[in-house]
Amino acid sequence: MICEIVSVGTELLMGQIANTDARYLSERMSEMGFFVYHHTTVGDNAGRILEALATAVKRSDIVITTGGLGPTEDDLTKETVAELFGLELIPDERSIKELKDQAEKRGCTLPEYSLKQGCFPKGARIMPNRRGTAPGCIIETQGKIVAVLPGPPIELIDMFEQQLEPYLMVKRETRIASRFLKIFGVGEAQVQSELWDLFHLGNPTLALYCGMAEVTARVTVKCALAENPNKLLDPLESEIRQRMGTSVYAEGRNATLQETVFQMLVQKGKMLALAESCTGGMLGSMLTDCSGASKALLEGHVTYNDRAKMRVLGVSNDTMYTYGAVSAQCASEMAAGALLISSADYALSITGIAGPEGGTAAKPVGTCFIGLADRTGVITKHFLFDNGDRTWVRTLCCQHALNMLRLKLIGAEP
Amino acid sequence: MICEIVSVGTELLMGQIANTDARYLSERMSEMGFFVYHHTTVGDNAGRILEALATAVKRSDIVITTGGLGPTEDDLTKETVAELFGLELIPDERSIKELKDQAEKRGCTLPEYSLKQGCFPKGARIMPNRRGTAPGCIIETQGKIVAVLPGPPIELIDMFEQQLEPYLMVKRETRIASRFLKIFGVGEAQVQSELWDLFHLGNPTLALYCGMAEVTARVTVKCALAENPNKLLDPLESEIRQRMGTSVYAEGRNATLQETVFQMLVQKGKMLALAESCTGGMLGSMLTDCSGASKALLEGHVTYNDRAKMRVLGVSNDTMYTYGAVSAQCASEMAAGALLISSADYALSITGIAGPEGGTAAKPVGTCFIGLADRTGVITKHFLFDNGDRTWVRTLCCQHALNMLRLKLIGAEP
Repeated sequence: MICEIVSVGTELLMGQIANTDARYLSERMSEMGFFVYHHTTVGDNAGRILEALATAVKRSDIVITTGGLGPTEDDLTKETVAELFGLELIPDERSIKELKDQAEKRGCTLPEYSLKQGCFPKGARIMPNRRGTAPGCIIETQGKIVAVLPGPPIELIDMFEQQLEPYLMVKRETRIASRFLKIFGVGEAQVQSELWDLFHLGNPTLALYCGMAEVTARVTVKCALAENPNKLLDPLESEIRQRMGTSVYAEGRNATLQETVFQMLVQKGKMLALAESCTGGMLGSMLTDCSGASKALLEGHVTYNDRAKMRVLGVSNDTMYTYGAVSAQCASEMAAGALLISSADYALSITGIAGPEGGTAAKPVGTCFIGLADRTGVITKHFLFDNGDRTWVRTLCCQHALNMLRLKLIGAEP
Repeated sequence: MICEIVSVGTELLMGQIANTDARYLSERMSEMGFFVYHHTTVGDNAGRILEALATAVKRSDIVITTGGLGPTEDDLTKETVAELFGLELIPDERSIKELKDQAEKRGCTLPEYSLKQGCFPKGARIMPNRRGTAPGCIIETQGKIVAVLPGPPIELIDMFEQQLEPYLMVKRETRIASRFLKIFGVGEAQVQSELWDLFHLGNPTLALYCGMAEVTARVTVKCALAENPNKLLDPLESEIRQRMGTSVYAEGRNATLQETVFQMLVQKGKMLALAESCTGGMLGSMLTDCSGASKALLEGHVTYNDRAKMRVLGVSNDTMYTYGAVSAQCASEMAAGALLISSADYALSITGIAGPEGGTAAKPVGTCFIGLADRTGVITKHFLFDNGDRTWVRTLCCQHALNMLRLKLIGAEP
């Protein structure tokens, strides 16, 4: 069954907020096996709402609207749905009582104009709002389903999960299941050429998505409700893992390099220390975004200043003057120093030129050295991240540092 | 002139990413004085892209497409725009050379199928991509403007600001100018009530946008191209500044608290040191996002572990056992310690409970202590950020720390 999301709200067209409702609903509807073919956004304008709804109902089986359920004259969604299907708007006593009770709780009386929030197209199934004031509704008529949801995400998500999802579950004809393989250190073009023949299997399907420095391979299977999707997903996942080798770092829609490395450290009972220069604490911040980070992160030192590198981490005068702060030698001594003072099992160091100033012919902007120390010694790697801004260079530094540690932890060549 | 955003990408319809491109473009186009009436999103499907484009071109003067410029068979945007206007796709030698050079830099040869990224509808004005591979283009024909932009936000924003915006600027019939007053430490409701009467001036208009912990007051004036918009903007900006006092920290769309504080430190020739616990380096990372950060940031210490707080920063055993790591006493000693070891002029410290675990009845999740030390002593403040996730708590900690230092630097009460 084909689904369309129609979002109503001038604030979306002014760019005041991103349409996260459409993202959420698309994700959930796709997972349930519906095909979302269109998002349409219109402002609080009766003519354009009606036109968008008429088009949506013509080409889709299920139309979900978001927004336009408030008490003001600008809130027109239910009115327009009623007009489209030639239905009357009828007051619902229970909803109106609920609105009055809510107003009383806030210590005021319900204004006359708010009564429209308790009116619905005739025959609609009303969905009470447990997180706000405006109820939603479902109209099933002329072979189509139109679900009307409020705009605020907290209200929309609750109403979807508690009321609309169970209603739609019984309407499904097929099941859709996906896996997300996260790949680091290999460009999109290379992933594409390695997996070339797998893009035309029909079912399951394979698609690539590009993140900042990583590629996500999404494998999606469509099957009958009674079938087990894993029968088709398992062999394709194995095939991709075999071809891409250690560059696949995790499976999971929301998997991240930092969470993966953090969990590996925790499982192995190993502690990490950090020495950051150009990233200024970004690597520490990424790792401490993982809940329970103290299980793996001992401490970090942001030695932005050269003297701090020497005083805090023990980088030698010689290294600083002979090779400079952005050098393999300095990265090596930073990592070794951080390991020594913290007694951690591993230490990562980052020193580089994030730009836009500070580059030279020998060490252009984007030059970066990463060090990885453990009890057996230090290795360093040299990178050049040369087509991005300061944030881009710094983020890549952190991701490559995490990846070096990940490879070390799985016994591969960092 | 009426504008429509047509987003192309199955990943949007699958809900894998939110359509932040549409939000960005809507905001910028609205500010420039264009009217955005529709967003439409379709997948990587030739028929549906063509239908969406045909509808958009019929009802709008300017159509901006996003996405679908990659090298794969699924990437169809330029092909469809060409079909819509009956234009041939022509290889552009300069773009193809650029693509080949980029591939060579990465140590590979450009695959045959990637050549399509260097082909454009006949007569198109090509927009080189400074942040990625796929160039965009502008087609102006039959009284309509269609601008084709890449999907990745970093590429899209750069291409819009450097190339499309200047192109569209001269197409405008009126001039729109805006100022952005950034306000920190005062809630949206309070700003709204302080500025209540200023929302109904007509021209200039005033609108509020809510960020994570800050409010942006946008003042926009519409005038003839020959007029000077500052005549209307200056008095309104002054009025807002007078009413909101020291909570206005900067003017500018992209102004941030960290950039503001960094510039103040540089101007005063003062150096800063940091001691972070729950934020794990986030404050350092925010500050070093400012180019030339070493002019103001000396060093930082991420003392996530309690022993590190004692060993690195000299927090006393007594404090740790009597008050705990999340306490005003600990924040105070962390700041004093960071100041002492670094010889900086100011030191900021942060210690708190970011959650979701670790909260107690006395110190619930979201409890945070911030310390600010200078040569004259240390002050600490206690915060409770109790309605957000881990990232929310950590970000608020950093922003409030920066704001304390900002107030100190302007001679106000931190």
